[in-house]
Order: sequence, then structure tokens, then C-alpha cells
Amino acid sequence: MPIADKIQKGITSPTYASRLAAESLTLQNQYGPEKIFDLSVSNPVLEPPPEFVKELQTFVDARQSGTHRYMENAGYSANRVMVAEQLKRETGLNFSKDEVIMTCGSSGALNVVFRGLFNPGEELISFAPFYPEYAPYVENYGGICKIIPAGPDFAPDLKAMETAVTPKTKAVIINSPNNPTGLICSQETLKGISDVLTRKGAEYQTTIYAISDDTYCRLVFDGVKCPRLLNYYANTIALTSYSGELSISGERIGYAVVHPDCQDGKDVFGALVYANRTLGFVNCPALMQNVIRRLPDTSMYLKDYQRKRNYLFGKLVGMGYKVVKPAGGFFMLVKSPLKDDAAFVSELKKHLILAVPGGEFQAPGYFRISFCVEDKTLEGAMNGFQKALASVK
Amino acid sequence: MPIADKIQKGITSPTYASRLAAESLTLQNQYGPEKIFDLSVSNPVLEPPPEFVKELQTFVDARQSGTHRYMENAGYSANRVMVAEQLKRETGLNFSKDEVIMTCGSSGALNVVFRGLFNPGEELISFAPFYPEYAPYVENYGGICKIIPAGPDFAPDLKAMETAVTPKTKAVIINSPNNPTGLICSQETLKGISDVLTRKGAEYQTTIYAISDDTYCRLVFDGVKCPRLLNYYANTIALTSYSGELSISGERIGYAVVHPDCQDGKDVFGALVYANRTLGFVNCPALMQNVIRRLPDTSMYLKDYQRKRNYLFGKLVGMGYKVVKPAGGFFMLVKSPLKDDAAFVSELKKHLILAVPGGEFQAPGYFRISFCVEDKTLEGAMNGFQKALASVK
Repeated sequence: MPIADKIQKGITSPTYASRLAAESLTLQNQYGPEKIFDLSVSNPVLEPPPEFVKELQTFVDARQSGTHRYMENAGYSANRVMVAEQLKRETGLNFSKDEVIMTCGSSGALNVVFRGLFNPGEELISFAPFYPEYAPYVENYGGICKIIPAGPDFAPDLKAMETAVTPKTKAVIINSPNNPTGLICSQETLKGISDVLTRKGAEYQTTIYAISDDTYCRLVFDGVKCPRLLNYYANTIALTSYSGELSISGERIGYAVVHPDCQDGKDVFGALVYANRTLGFVNCPALMQNVIRRLPDTSMYLKDYQRKRNYLFGKLVGMGYKVVKPAGGFFMLVKSPLKDDAAFVSELKKHLILAVPGGEFQAPGYFRISFCVEDKTLEGAMNGFQKALASVK
Repeated sequence: MPIADKIQKGITSPTYASRLAAESLTLQNQYGPEKIFDLSVSNPVLEPPPEFVKELQTFVDARQSGTHRYMENAGYSANRVMVAEQLKRETGLNFSKDEVIMTCGSSGALNVVFRGLFNPGEELISFAPFYPEYAPYVENYGGICKIIPAGPDFAPDLKAMETAVTPKTKAVIINSPNNPTGLICSQETLKGISDVLTRKGAEYQTTIYAISDDTYCRLVFDGVKCPRLLNYYANTIALTSYSGELSISGERIGYAVVHPDCQDGKDVFGALVYANRTLGFVNCPALMQNVIRRLPDTSMYLKDYQRKRNYLFGKLVGMGYKVVKPAGGFFMLVKSPLKDDAAFVSELKKHLILAVPGGEFQAPGYFRISFCVEDKTLEGAMNGFQKALASVK
């Protein structure tokens, strides 16, 4: 085999995302871009907020010397202090910059965490439905992704988790608010996860880490505060990104943090920094760190997303769709009126609406739509949603 | 072990680079930054050229919509077309954008290439002296770094290479101009490498790739054109970075290319794109791609570096040091007046000069100094170099 075996498999079956991107382009060329309602995207189409633009211009114009060079692999101290202070306020935990590493977004953070922790053959437990890239990420380092099927309400199934934990379990990952459901984990669930990990860790004499994918934790609606796993389990590594909050997904900035009371926490942090260096990230891009540091609040789009969610949810429920109401993020999971979710996604495509079959996220019988798109795209899709539903009844 | 075994080893023995950075800081605090002559750096201290600054400001002020979003994992088409056109001019080979992937610098490119090609247990052949990060990079994916000792003139030892190639050899890596020597591979050497790989590949019925680390190939002095492995061996993947050429090492931009006639070239390219996505880079940072694309020429500092090299080389030789004259890049390898290079590096430190022992690069008995520093740093170090040499005679 000329290339790596595991990758041969990956490239011969292109991801749904890449197939959809290609289809979207074909349809746009055929019908005109304004006629296509692409709700398959995970790439926010809102422009970055004026506050970001202003800081970017101010910083670039100031021409401070030395600002495009390498810095410490963990990132600028000032950024790490800022993150530590924010997390102190949000969690009450005693974070310092020595637990914060700036990364190339959440995806970079996840790879750094997996590389830092996993030996080949060790297991990651993930609750369905979940972001499908977790599996190839952990497999990069010989880790194994073990999937717990979704319960009826999409809450993590703690009994199934208890059975799934083995002496080979290195970590459990949760994503709250979740992609694709938008649901947040309750305090009871987080406490339950902590209990299981503590009990099983003691039984097997291992440290089982929790990885808290907090990518959407600052995009939570209705004034709700998203409970954080960090507040329930000390052996937690949390990570997030500025991509969604600021609509800058292409710029690659986010961070990971190690709980201040994590067992062997200094080694874990050292491992993340080592992985950030040796995976070739070297450091999170300098210019973006310099800009983000000057932005006190990064949740400027919360109200917009809440409005978009309300519109989409209200309309679809009104038509007769069964919709999982997202508490945060910018994705919505809808029950497919056909048992075969891919077949209904094809039906939607006839009405020039692009969605992602739930099977992609281990949620068969559902499909995922995004509301990180312009209002006119959501509004324009409503007619097609109505017709598609009527056509399969 | 709480963290990955291989990383435990890595973090308990910090790199020379990180120890030096810490020492440099301590010395600067103790004596004042202007008294310290830090020639251990690989982080160019020149500011980015005015052309870069102008394009950055122009681009940021123009506020084109959609420019901070994800793009294709391989990067913007326009950047890839630009790179293909440049490589066509430089090599005469028929490159298209479909062989070009934009990466997070050379380090990102190397990881993407190693992840794309290597199965656990497969071997990378590297000629000493070499950039020490090659080993942890390939080990991320279970690859094994096999080192060919340096010959007396630091040219790749082709006989030793022929013996080292086994059925497990996935690739050979060369770096020309080389870090730490600054030497470029001759056409004869490149042809020799090609002959060995072709012969051994046929014998073992394998495809052996060549990885051409061209990080410094546009920083070559005295009007010399650096011969490119791409012109001698079709199964070549080449990579480089804009870090050194533009003094923007913290911004993480570079690229990798697959030779247009590479065997299974489409699969190899697909593997690189897949690896760029699943290693969590996702894409090379958007803003930097948008700026670089508008810069027709990125070798604006060639004359400065040539002047710095001439000064440093002339002065040290004049004092009686034996120096390998670099043909390119911004590093210089100097024979240690003491057999123990680390001991002489300690001697230099007494004179507030920081250098890197050659042992770090598999070049024992030498030390490496950088000339990507300000003139006053080079000039200020000369007295110390003189005294250090006198003190060990």
C-alpha cells in the first residue's frame, strides 16, 4: 500500500461533508446560489462581529515589533492569563495560565489531547450521537473509539458507560451543548459520569480522564448556564474554540485546559504542550492570539443564534416535524419522516435543501440542519420543508 | 502511566531549545537583554518586510466578506495555483493546484506527510546532521527514524543509505539547504539518491518516497540555484514554509506538493489532505493565505542574510575557528575547539553567547549558531567568541 492503511480507507470513502460541499457547489452553479438552501454547513456564514474587525485593524495598524514570531508552544502568556481568568469566573476553580494551552481550534486541541494521553490500543468512550471526527482523531495515535448508543432522549447512557469502561479506557468524551443535538448535559448526568469514572478508576487502579468538548458552551440560549464537567470531575481536560463565537473558523484558534486538581496534572499539561509542538502546530497562529486577547466578550452572536433557532424550531414544529429543541450551538436534529434518513435527505435535496443524515452522527432516523446561516436561507427553505413533508405522507 | 508512554520520555527530558530559551530569559533578566547574544534561535528576529505589512493592512481594510471561514482542507485554490505556477517556473515540472496543499508551516507539512504515508513500524531514513524534530514527528504515527551518520564533508552517504534501505523503508528525507550546516545537496548526490531508491524499490517491489524539506531553498546565497530533488526523483513530496522568508514563523503558513508524476500520486495527495483535516489543522490559517497570495516575491531578505553570513563567517574564520560555510538558510555549523561541544557551548555562555551543541543535530564536535538576528547581536558577540577561543587554547 503506497499510503498509510488507515488513510487508504478514509480517502476511498469521502466524508459526507465533502460530498455535500461538492453537491452544494453543483446545485449552486445549476440554479444560482440564492436558490440553494444549504443547511448542511458547520461553517458559520455570519461575518465576524465589528468588535473583532476593529481590534484586528487596530492591531495591524499599530505594527508592534515581534508580533509575527514564534512564541512559547503553549501560546502567549497574556492569552493564557485571560483564559484562566475567564474560567475562574465561569467555574469558580482556581485556574492559572499554567493549565492553559492555546491551540489551532477545537480540532487542534482534540488531537493534542489524544496524542498527549493515548497509547496504541487504549480506548476512548464516546456517547452517540457525536461529532464524527472524534474517531479518526483518536485513531491517528492508535486509540480506539468505543461508541455508546444513544438513549431515547439522547442523554448519555450511564449504565451502558459503566459496562463499556475497561482497564484499557483512557478517557471518556462528552460534548455539551452537543453537535448534532444542541442538548446540554444535566448536572445529574455530569455527576453520574464523575461517579462512574471515580468508581471504575479505583476498581482498575487507573486514572480515567474526561475530555469535555466545550466548543459550544458559550452559545447557550434562554439565559441558561451550561453546567461544566470541570465542576464535577477533577481529571478533566476541557477544550473549546473561538470559531463559532466569532465566525472565524478558518483562522484556527481555540484552547485546552487541564483541571487545576487533575491527577498528574503537570505531566498532562506537559504532554499537551509537547504534542502541540511535535504534531507540527508549534503554536496557535500569532496574529489571531494578538487580536482575541483584546476582545473582552466573545458571545456577541448569542442573540442572533437564539432568534434563528426560535424561528427554525417554531416553523418546523408548526409543519408537523418532530424536532429536538437545541439548548445551544447552531445545529438542530430533526426526526426523519421516513425511517431511512438518507432517503428523506434526498427528498429535501429535490427542494434544493441540503441537510446531513443522522447516520453520520450515529443518530439514524434523524437529520441535522444548521442555523449558522443567513435568515433568508432559513426563510427560503421553509417552502421546501413543507413540500418534502407532504410528499412522503 | 497517566500520559502516552512516548511522551512521558519527551517531557521528562526537555529539549535543548526550551532549556536554552529559559536560560536566555534568565540571562537577559540578569544582565539586560542588550548584553545577551542569543545565537541559538531559529526564530528570525527581522521584522516582516514592508511589502508583507502593506498587503496585510490592505487586505484587512478591504473587509472582503467570507474571508475568515473554513475553506477546502487543501487551502484556497488561488494560493495553490500560485504555488503551482511558481514551482513550474522553478523546476520546469508540470505542477497544477491538484498537487499543492497549504499547511501550517513546514512542521505541519511534515506531520501531514508522515501521517499520510506511514504505517506503524515503517522506517524513515534521515541523514545526520538533521533537524531533531523529524524523529518525534514520524514517531507520532508509529514510524521509526533511522539515522545515517554524517560523512566527513556532511554530504549524504549514499553507500550507507543503500545498506540502510529495507523492505520497511517508507521514505528518505533530505533537507537542502540543511539545518544545521547550511549546505546544499549537489546534483550528483540527488541523482545518487534517486538511483538508490529506484533500484531498491524495484528489488523490494515497494515504492520508496523521498521527502524534500525545502524550507530554506529560496534563501540561497551567491546567486546559486539550489538543485531540487523534485527534478531527480518522481516519487518526491516537497514541502516548505514562509516562516523564514518573511519572518512570520508564528503565523504557521507553508505548503507541501506531490510530484506530478509520483506513483499513486492522486492517493498520496488525497492522504495529505485527509491528514491535514484529521490531524486537526483543518486548514492553513485563512488570513495568512489571503495575504501571502498577494505577495509575488518572498525572498526579500536574501541579501540581508547573505551579508550577515559573510560577516559572521569572515570574522570567525579570521579568529581561527573552523566553520562550515553555509550556502543558504540562516544557520552556521562551527567546529568546537573542544572535543566536547557542550563544554565549549558552556564556555561561550560565560561570555553571554548562546549556541546549540552539535550533538542536538547528530553532529558532535560542532556547535550551531544562527544569523537570523540583528547585526548588533552578531557584532556584539565577536569579542566573546575571541575570548572563548583564547580561553580553551
